[in-house]
Amino acid sequence: MASTARFDVVAIGNAIVDVIARADDALIESEGLVKGSMRLIDAAEATRLYAAMGPAVEMSGGSAANTLAGMAALGRRCGFIGQVAKDQLGQVFTHDLTSLGVAFDTPAAAGGEPTARCLILVTPDGQRTMNTFLGASQNLGRESLDAALIAEADILYLEGYLWNADASRAAMAEAIALARAAGRRVAFTLSDTFVVAGHREDFRRMTAAREIDILFANEAELLELAQEGDFETALGKVAAEVPLLVATRGEKGAVALAGGERTEVAAEPIDTVVDTTGAGDLFAAGFLAGLADGRSMAECLTMGAVCAREIIAQVGPRAQTDLKAKVAERLG
Amino acid sequence: MASTARFDVVAIGNAIVDVIARADDALIESEGLVKGSMRLIDAAEATRLYAAMGPAVEMSGGSAANTLAGMAALGRRCGFIGQVAKDQLGQVFTHDLTSLGVAFDTPAAAGGEPTARCLILVTPDGQRTMNTFLGASQNLGRESLDAALIAEADILYLEGYLWNADASRAAMAEAIALARAAGRRVAFTLSDTFVVAGHREDFRRMTAAREIDILFANEAELLELAQEGDFETALGKVAAEVPLLVATRGEKGAVALAGGERTEVAAEPIDTVVDTTGAGDLFAAGFLAGLADGRSMAECLTMGAVCAREIIAQVGPRAQTDLKAKVAERLG
Repeated sequence: MASTARFDVVAIGNAIVDVIARADDALIESEGLVKGSMRLIDAAEATRLYAAMGPAVEMSGGSAANTLAGMAALGRRCGFIGQVAKDQLGQVFTHDLTSLGVAFDTPAAAGGEPTARCLILVTPDGQRTMNTFLGASQNLGRESLDAALIAEADILYLEGYLWNADASRAAMAEAIALARAAGRRVAFTLSDTFVVAGHREDFRRMTAAREIDILFANEAELLELAQEGDFETALGKVAAEVPLLVATRGEKGAVALAGGERTEVAAEPIDTVVDTTGAGDLFAAGFLAGLADGRSMAECLTMGAVCAREIIAQVGPRAQTDLKAKVAERLG
Repeated sequence: MASTARFDVVAIGNAIVDVIARADDALIESEGLVKGSMRLIDAAEATRLYAAMGPAVEMSGGSAANTLAGMAALGRRCGFIGQVAKDQLGQVFTHDLTSLGVAFDTPAAAGGEPTARCLILVTPDGQRTMNTFLGASQNLGRESLDAALIAEADILYLEGYLWNADASRAAMAEAIALARAAGRRVAFTLSDTFVVAGHREDFRRMTAAREIDILFANEAELLELAQEGDFETALGKVAAEVPLLVATRGEKGAVALAGGERTEVAAEPIDTVVDTTGAGDLFAAGFLAGLADGRSMAECLTMGAVCAREIIAQVGPRAQTDLKAKVAERLG
């Protein structure tokens, strides 16, 4: 799949710094949280919950940005569009992404809301429960879309989380139109079951209108989108409207459906689940890097599984191991 | 050692957020850095070096603050005095320390310089090379000293790094006088060979004047202070002026000299040195917590060695494992 495009993927996503703390199940319960899910919080709730949390580690995050960080580590050329503020966390986010070689030029917003942060509680079972204060990130508007950048990438990658805010949701229709006009493919990740529940009609309209070329979903998100109780039924229903559907199933592996052809791989074995933050993001990174390499569907899925395995074995959603080496060990 | 004091230890130190990145030896060399040491950098150099570094993780740090975090995890009552700015990194530092139950009320500085950060390059051998931009931290002055807090603690603990800035250095004489006037003991850590080299006369004056009750030093710092080439000679020379001298020797273990009595322990075995950041700080935490427990000198040293082992096996200077449980495993 040799290409003359300047970038393999340009992604649009929330620009978020993760604030990661270990927490026991009692805190999840007393806070009334749904383990493994993401919820939005306002500034006051962010301050209150932060005070209730233990000591934390800060690390750049954001779903689509995590995917690009993984792809860059795998040697692919990427660009990012997202909104930070002119503050210390905005500097951290920008540094971490650009130091990996990802192009990121969306101007930081001066004044107004601070850079987004996600308070992540990691329970002893390795599950992460996310509480996102969107801050500046939700103000990503049409004016922030770099049409030239989008036109220069083989694939435009969007995260479903962007549908959580009015401004960023409105900008996405335009982003898709820009990619289409440039003859590029559009990839989309459903992000979270609550996101799908809140915007199902819009997502269904998009797939029905053939606006999505590549769709990433985990099992729960796929069921929620299809409004089905059975995985196979949901898979068939959604695949009918999407040229390439990639569904992840945790320890049950992953499946891809493309042009009627089905490919399945097992999950990569893992000793201890340390923190599942970023597992889906890094799966997408490995899969998309495989696509850019021109690999087979099975190899693309395996690359996704290897990257997911690496991120689950560590704290935080940005790889501390050498993903390129790990993929080479597995696939040669 | 039952006590009526409200705190076991009140510490004064630089209030710093660590910015930790993996780096190869080539970067250390091209930057002309001395591996394993700490140097001060200004705002421009901090910006330049940050841009040259790879993706990082942010975590609260600061030598004395790390020691308190460890002590709090071991169940001891602690207070901190240090200067942050009213910015996001200042919030991070304050949250992480207070969420452990450490009393920290030094008002954040509005305007002026930002919260201190330390750019830490961790090489594949686990050594850390620190580049500190002191920012707001160096403006810790006499007016920031909480005399009541100092009087309420059994031990006042000071880090040698405070001697690196004029304002904080000047404040330390007053802090020592406040502790002495309240009948409290003063503990001091030499921090770094360059610090000792720069302030040897002052440190010698302090020990000669019997202002220091407990002195922590590693082997290199002790040789630098005593201006001796031999460890035993240096040990004897310094111990003559310090009631309790604690010297750490890395993989060679640690030794304490108190009232003519010498106690020695081996280092705790460790599989892989991941990152030595905070090893000395956490040794002091374990040792001082042992003292507050009323334990024997050998047990205090072992507690220090256990805490140092735990911090060396992870990234960053704040323990992610349960120090209390680790000490209990070792000492019961």
